[in-house]
Amino acid sequence: MARVTVLGAGMMGSALCVPLTDSGHDVRLVGTHLDDDIITSLLQRAYHPTLNFALPASIRPYYSTDLELAASDTELMVVGVSSAGVHWAGRQLAAVLRPDVPVAMISKGLAWQDGQLTLLPDLLASHVPTGPGQHLHPAAIGGPCIAGELVRRVPTCVVLTGRDPRVCDTVADLLRTPYYRVWQDPDVTGVQVCAAAKNAYAVGMAFGMGLHEARGGRPGPIALHNYEAAVLAQSVREMQRLVRALGGDPQTVAGLAGIGDLNVTCNGGRTGRFGKLLGSGIGLSAALERMQGQTLECREILATFRDALPSLQAQKRLTSGSLPLLDHLARVALDGDPVEVPFERFFGP
Amino acid sequence: MARVTVLGAGMMGSALCVPLTDSGHDVRLVGTHLDDDIITSLLQRAYHPTLNFALPASIRPYYSTDLELAASDTELMVVGVSSAGVHWAGRQLAAVLRPDVPVAMISKGLAWQDGQLTLLPDLLASHVPTGPGQHLHPAAIGGPCIAGELVRRVPTCVVLTGRDPRVCDTVADLLRTPYYRVWQDPDVTGVQVCAAAKNAYAVGMAFGMGLHEARGGRPGPIALHNYEAAVLAQSVREMQRLVRALGGDPQTVAGLAGIGDLNVTCNGGRTGRFGKLLGSGIGLSAALERMQGQTLECREILATFRDALPSLQAQKRLTSGSLPLLDHLARVALDGDPVEVPFERFFGP
Repeated sequence: MARVTVLGAGMMGSALCVPLTDSGHDVRLVGTHLDDDIITSLLQRAYHPTLNFALPASIRPYYSTDLELAASDTELMVVGVSSAGVHWAGRQLAAVLRPDVPVAMISKGLAWQDGQLTLLPDLLASHVPTGPGQHLHPAAIGGPCIAGELVRRVPTCVVLTGRDPRVCDTVADLLRTPYYRVWQDPDVTGVQVCAAAKNAYAVGMAFGMGLHEARGGRPGPIALHNYEAAVLAQSVREMQRLVRALGGDPQTVAGLAGIGDLNVTCNGGRTGRFGKLLGSGIGLSAALERMQGQTLECREILATFRDALPSLQAQKRLTSGSLPLLDHLARVALDGDPVEVPFERFFGP
Repeated sequence: MARVTVLGAGMMGSALCVPLTDSGHDVRLVGTHLDDDIITSLLQRAYHPTLNFALPASIRPYYSTDLELAASDTELMVVGVSSAGVHWAGRQLAAVLRPDVPVAMISKGLAWQDGQLTLLPDLLASHVPTGPGQHLHPAAIGGPCIAGELVRRVPTCVVLTGRDPRVCDTVADLLRTPYYRVWQDPDVTGVQVCAAAKNAYAVGMAFGMGLHEARGGRPGPIALHNYEAAVLAQSVREMQRLVRALGGDPQTVAGLAGIGDLNVTCNGGRTGRFGKLLGSGIGLSAALERMQGQTLECREILATFRDALPSLQAQKRLTSGSLPLLDHLARVALDGDPVEVPFERFFGP
């Protein structure tokens, strides 16, 4: 039993409170300034409006203004904000985090700043002052995990990674339940690159279904599965190249953090829906309109990679033209180019 | 333009006639002795009853008794029988195949005979007498390809492998169309092991959907995708171990022949349906009854691996307990054990 504070009451941060509570921890869920309606609903009737699900009543909800109170005696701090919120979360932690409290984070992926790609755990840590010889090394919780399934206690296996093995051990022990299983993977870079890249590639995986349905087809054993499988194989190939270029282990792509997370991202959410809309041929503007302003991590990461690739190529860490699918996805999802997948450029050296 | 003879009028052999015909080849489709009804239907109205689709009228159907006629001047022989029919096909080829005619085959996978695992292309070749210094090295066409999608000209990318690069080049050139793209992979063993193993693992991938629907769930973004993704990641891990143990390149598993083919096998056919029935908890006998005697390659390959694993372990090519999912799948699909997936044994060293 431990006191655990989760910062960020979005879907995944809130969902993680379920295994934490089931393990008997004292769980405080603190909203960001954007989560006030969620916290109000949780306080009134333990109901999470975006998860559309009643959470265990023993979870204690707090408004963002009460973070200091909720964090004062905590034994584990979990950062559950979106990747765009990591700077903000870092500044909050700088104000309230006691030294020696381990930090876990759900926010995953990469940011492009000052001319280089930075892993989100390092970005978070950069905001938090530490003493001489000390470093904040958050443990990052990877996928594959759909929040709406985790609250329903669907058997889930996730990867945990981080630069400090002791922090990782502590976090893994606190998180583990019989239905939420945690494996540790020392490849911090590989896990984070996969977490970012899978959002980009999941868009392409969904094109086939959109194209099929636009032609009047229905989901079923005969659809555009051949097309989807070819996009999948090329996605894995390119994710391996990206991981290698950034200093991770390409083998990570073949595991939970890579193909596992790509699989749930295709099946579970916004990214797949957006890719399907694009695949249907309605065009980028119409697809964005239908997404009603929802955050699309896939577009953010495609833009990040687009910014980063020239410098990776200049450093000879990537060959020009070695990521034809990623190039294509950026043009479709950012510039509105037609969806036609360039299969002829796949599976090259 | 070439004269091409396809032996076996099942779904995949017949489907392959579509790109062959579209490339302008003179295509003869010869049924096995089990395909008489299919050939009759094709002769009468160019309709393939199991594909449930009208094939191009220019394909020329032949009964099995006319193989010699159909093959006499052929420039490419394609073996399109199921894996169980490879011995039979080898004996037919022994009788009619002219030397120097390249052979391609769709039948994929492994057989266990005389105490060792044999790749199907080698098994086929073993039946065909060749002159001194000559060897028959069929080019094997891998996945991912659902036959019902190929006849509809869905964009498809497949892998071709074989021990004779010249034969592979010839076959690839004859097969390629703008919608049926062929990549060559020199890893004969890896491609064949993937082709076999994916049938076994696809059963496990489908458990989650069966379990979800048995609980009253519907397909959708919240199902048992987390469960499925964990099974997928462990499947890929075990396929890599199998490929390595048998002398292939584990990286092949990350490509079209591995995860690509696993993906379509889950989506497209009998194996997924069978796994879903098992996952629903109705039990093995009831699941088999619902499959109405259809060939289940997954059960054949699970039995083959069960026969082969002790000798691979004795030779130290595999560690005992290193394939916990495969062991479990064999017990569920062959012995009728309960479906509960042993997640706690996953992702071990």
